[in-house]
Amino acid sequence: MPPKTTAHKLAKDQKEISVAEFFEKNRQILGFDSPIKSIIMGVKEAVDNALDACEEAGILPDIIVKIDRIDQREYCISIEDNGPGIVSTSMPNVFGRLLYGSRFHAVRQSRGQQGIGISATIMYGQITTGKPATARSKVEGAEAAKEIDIIIDTKKNKPILLREEFIPWDDVSHGTRISFYMSGRYVTGRQSIYEYLRQTAIVNPHSSITFIDPSGKKYVFDRATNQLPPKTKEIKPHPDGLELGTLMNMTKATKERSLVKFLQNDFNRVSERVAKEICKAANLPQTTRLTSMTLESSKKLLDGISKVKIMAPQADCLSPIGDKLIRTGLKHVLDEVRPEFYAPPVTRDPKVHSGNPFLVEVGIVYGGGLPRDQQVQIYRFANRVPLLYQQGACVITKAIENTDWRRYGLEQRGGSGIPFGPAIILVHVASTKVPFTSEAKEAISSIPNIQEEIELALKACGRNLRTHLNKKERRNKTRAKFEIVQEIIPLMAEKTSGILGKPVPDLRGTITKIMNVIWIDDSVTYEKGRHRVKISIYNYTPKQQRFSIHTIIPGGSLNEKSCSLKPSNIKDEEKISWDLPRIASTEIYSLTYELNGLDADEYQDIELYISKINPIDVMGADPLPGDWDVESVNFIESEVVDLEEELDEEPDYDESGEDLDDE
Amino acid sequence: MPPKTTAHKLAKDQKEISVAEFFEKNRQILGFDSPIKSIIMGVKEAVDNALDACEEAGILPDIIVKIDRIDQREYCISIEDNGPGIVSTSMPNVFGRLLYGSRFHAVRQSRGQQGIGISATIMYGQITTGKPATARSKVEGAEAAKEIDIIIDTKKNKPILLREEFIPWDDVSHGTRISFYMSGRYVTGRQSIYEYLRQTAIVNPHSSITFIDPSGKKYVFDRATNQLPPKTKEIKPHPDGLELGTLMNMTKATKERSLVKFLQNDFNRVSERVAKEICKAANLPQTTRLTSMTLESSKKLLDGISKVKIMAPQADCLSPIGDKLIRTGLKHVLDEVRPEFYAPPVTRDPKVHSGNPFLVEVGIVYGGGLPRDQQVQIYRFANRVPLLYQQGACVITKAIENTDWRRYGLEQRGGSGIPFGPAIILVHVASTKVPFTSEAKEAISSIPNIQEEIELALKACGRNLRTHLNKKERRNKTRAKFEIVQEIIPLMAEKTSGILGKPVPDLRGTITKIMNVIWIDDSVTYEKGRHRVKISIYNYTPKQQRFSIHTIIPGGSLNEKSCSLKPSNIKDEEKISWDLPRIASTEIYSLTYELNGLDADEYQDIELYISKINPIDVMGADPLPGDWDVESVNFIESEVVDLEEELDEEPDYDESGEDLDDE
Repeated sequence: MPPKTTAHKLAKDQKEISVAEFFEKNRQILGFDSPIKSIIMGVKEAVDNALDACEEAGILPDIIVKIDRIDQREYCISIEDNGPGIVSTSMPNVFGRLLYGSRFHAVRQSRGQQGIGISATIMYGQITTGKPATARSKVEGAEAAKEIDIIIDTKKNKPILLREEFIPWDDVSHGTRISFYMSGRYVTGRQSIYEYLRQTAIVNPHSSITFIDPSGKKYVFDRATNQLPPKTKEIKPHPDGLELGTLMNMTKATKERSLVKFLQNDFNRVSERVAKEICKAANLPQTTRLTSMTLESSKKLLDGISKVKIMAPQADCLSPIGDKLIRTGLKHVLDEVRPEFYAPPVTRDPKVHSGNPFLVEVGIVYGGGLPRDQQVQIYRFANRVPLLYQQGACVITKAIENTDWRRYGLEQRGGSGIPFGPAIILVHVASTKVPFTSEAKEAISSIPNIQEEIELALKACGRNLRTHLNKKERRNKTRAKFEIVQEIIPLMAEKTSGILGKPVPDLRGTITKIMNVIWIDDSVTYEKGRHRVKISIYNYTPKQQRFSIHTIIPGGSLNEKSCSLKPSNIKDEEKISWDLPRIASTEIYSLTYELNGLDADEYQDIELYISKINPIDVMGADPLPGDWDVESVNFIESEVVDLEEELDEEPDYDESGEDLDDE
Repeated sequence: MPPKTTAHKLAKDQKEISVAEFFEKNRQILGFDSPIKSIIMGVKEAVDNALDACEEAGILPDIIVKIDRIDQREYCISIEDNGPGIVSTSMPNVFGRLLYGSRFHAVRQSRGQQGIGISATIMYGQITTGKPATARSKVEGAEAAKEIDIIIDTKKNKPILLREEFIPWDDVSHGTRISFYMSGRYVTGRQSIYEYLRQTAIVNPHSSITFIDPSGKKYVFDRATNQLPPKTKEIKPHPDGLELGTLMNMTKATKERSLVKFLQNDFNRVSERVAKEICKAANLPQTTRLTSMTLESSKKLLDGISKVKIMAPQADCLSPIGDKLIRTGLKHVLDEVRPEFYAPPVTRDPKVHSGNPFLVEVGIVYGGGLPRDQQVQIYRFANRVPLLYQQGACVITKAIENTDWRRYGLEQRGGSGIPFGPAIILVHVASTKVPFTSEAKEAISSIPNIQEEIELALKACGRNLRTHLNKKERRNKTRAKFEIVQEIIPLMAEKTSGILGKPVPDLRGTITKIMNVIWIDDSVTYEKGRHRVKISIYNYTPKQQRFSIHTIIPGGSLNEKSCSLKPSNIKDEEKISWDLPRIASTEIYSLTYELNGLDADEYQDIELYISKINPIDVMGADPLPGDWDVESVNFIESEVVDLEEELDEEPDYDESGEDLDDE
């Protein structure tokens, strides 16, 4: 036997650590790092699971969250859903075992992916109160629900059932209820269960969420739509950003025998043609047997993949919140502050990080009652889940800090850091695999690809903001000039006429000469589901004018009969064009129309475009984007955006590594 | 059989996820989220292990880090140490299995605690390059080293050895070398391997670290001391912040049979007397059998524990960096900027989070060439390991943001956020269990206890900064007054005398009357290991003066023979007092002494205290703290600090939860 060296002493102490034991000691990694946060985390894990299960089963979620105060520091938390239920044999592992789940291997967007959350919650409850959790579930068609009292043997990461029985649950046809005790502190405010549920309801309008707080007060977040979000499709891994080792594992695990078939069948977006191209680029025969793949040939294959252009992944494995919901969501949050402007939200095309598709959405709200002398507020979402904590750790925050907001009208010392101003920035990252910084899923890692996409989306949305602010400033200036001219000239004329004893002349021609502009003004009034729009066109030029005017409305809302002038063209039920009649010099022409069936705040800012006239002569409308008739305006805008992006783009990560800096 | 409901489909997909597989898919959690960061993480994990192993064996570490570039994106990284080695049978699990280690259960400060780092590094190398890692180790007394080529079967979280053999390693008597290939990007700059090693060397001056970069350039961070940091002692869990569930687990696992013995033997700082007190407070008989403990009696016990005052844990399970090293460390970092002031570092007494002792140290550097118009720089350390990433996620940053630095002379908009100004703030958190936000160990969680301690330390150190800035301002003002008086009065006298045709009178008395102060100035020069100090005392009062002057020097550095006046008292070789002779009005008295054996920057700011005189009459020295002769000055300061703290303290976490906000 060797002598008792330190090495041998150390060897004696070495042992396996169960994953449950690991998280028992490192509960802060799971987000259980303060009494206030812990009960929010507990609710979040259970609600995420409930929403995922309902969506998977195509059920409109009805969720009930109830918090009871047991004593000074202990609460009983119970979450019930109408999901598909959990088969009784699975229940112990689902609730009583960490790293156990159904969604870990799937390439598809979902809230839970790790198989840690709910069992970790139960474990934390058990650590802090010594009490078991109770889970009850009933699957469709079952006569009774199964109910278990469960604790976790952390040394073994195994469930222990203290009780199990079938019990009637007659008022429920299928669903799950989980109740657990937990030490914590119940609070209200910006980081609270109420706030988490509210934000969850905003981005999941197909859900109905009922919350009963410790005092027994009941809050209901009603279902806003009966339409489930489109079910996300499971896809194969995308070849972009694939690692060599992962590729080698895949070649070992595949059922295919030839290289070309493997590429075609085991990857997203690799057609037969693309598969052949990859083989060629890799200088490997299409018939290469996968069993014969060496490190060398795998490297060649990876190299080949990187040389061939492969389509971006389909968007249908992802479930973006969408423009409308982002606006509505923000408006819900902001009922009291009445912001001045909602910048049109930007949704980027899907991109890929390490084989996982993702996309970024950004919305910005500006002005109104938002505080002007504070940092902007940041709303972060990942796969439709609000992120309330760890803002400083999140790539979303880094992307915002890394953007020069001075260009877009916000105050920012030195052009970096969180900007100041009356604004809220909302960012949603949706991915088949959101790379969180920890198991607590509170912040997204600084993956360079993702940061880049967020920055591009922020810039695009920032440009929308800037356009608005510029327009506002321009309008304000013109309006000021108008007011001066319209007030002062008549006064001067009157005075002069009085002195000279002559009648006051018609001044419209004079004002027109001074202004020399076509002035377009618009107003919207709303009453009982009906928006009345009036567009007034003042011809303050010396000549008669004839041109076309165009606008965008929420699809299908136009009441055609209400139009004071028949539209010359309506495209996709949302792009309306009018060829205006001749408007004589100094004449005012009014165009009116009505929109039906919208909420008041779904139509506030009117986007007006003009054509067949020199835009320089017009105030209050923008030139029509080049090919309005062929493609959507949004498309055009994004084309412009892409062009600008290229100009904007700086080399983001140089050899010094300074720019990757997360500080 | 039940029908094929979604519940059954889901059940079919549910399976266990191996922890290796989990981290393979969530590598960003381990810190492998960008090519640049990945190779730094790899080096860090191996170096942390090497330092831990050497310290545990009482060996002065010699570490060699070598990076070779294989191609555009692949590197070979090799880390060799002279530690105790790893016994050959343990090697496969140590390097090839996640959640396997020797330090997880120990209540003692160490760098590695999770049993994840090095095996995760090897796994990441394997994923990105497809190549195995090579580990070689030799234990003391062994004739040969064991060398293995290893990969990890991620589906099973098990090592697979591709090669194992004993080979001679004659020039090494014991040690370990680990080499692995990894995709990544090698960079220089503020977040780089070089920087990580440099900061590591600063706070581990007992180590010698050699770094050979990809170009073959060799950097050596020499050992600065042959003294190992005191070995940290393993302790029992401290009862503070114990959770009910944990307590119940402990009562089940203990070898003791009676409650009083259990308390006494299984906890830190619970003496027989305290154990009895706890039993009494809990209203449980001392002889209660642990096998009979119920949930109810456990709750009573926990309640009893919370009622009894239990001593803070000993500091010897922790290894603080210490005042001297913090100063030296900061000075090393700052060789070029030549800061104006190093605020005396503050080390707080140990406190406890969830049974784990921890302590906080803070140092602040101010002025000189540090940039004035930027945010202050933050240096974060946890258990002597520099934290380079995730600053925004760290409780250290939150504590800094939560402190009103305007009080301490830094600029800060609205009194919160990272302050601006020419300063560096260093914070070290040492704990038997550092609660990191993720397995990547880049940021410390916002545990309320820890945040509070950091804030108290920041305030205490901030007060040191403020004292300096006030003194500086006062001195500047007095000096300006001096200069004016000394220049103008003679000029006036000369002029007046010239006009009157009289001789210029002796003006010292006049100046003295105007100043009416004792002015103390000091200067230090350094040459060849010798500091020469000159203290000049100007008696600008109308009377003769006699008083005592005191100073603090680095322990044992005084050359007693060099003193121009024999000290009246020397305490602990660092506190020197002189009873000065009478100094007549307008006289200047000089006191000189020398310090030997210090580095130039170990003694710059002279702390001077006076006694036996009204401090109001003296400029340039502070009143001697009350009981200098009885206790250390530091002690006094911290007493004062504690008093102020109580005044400073606001209710940090109110029911709204807003203050726990990490935004």
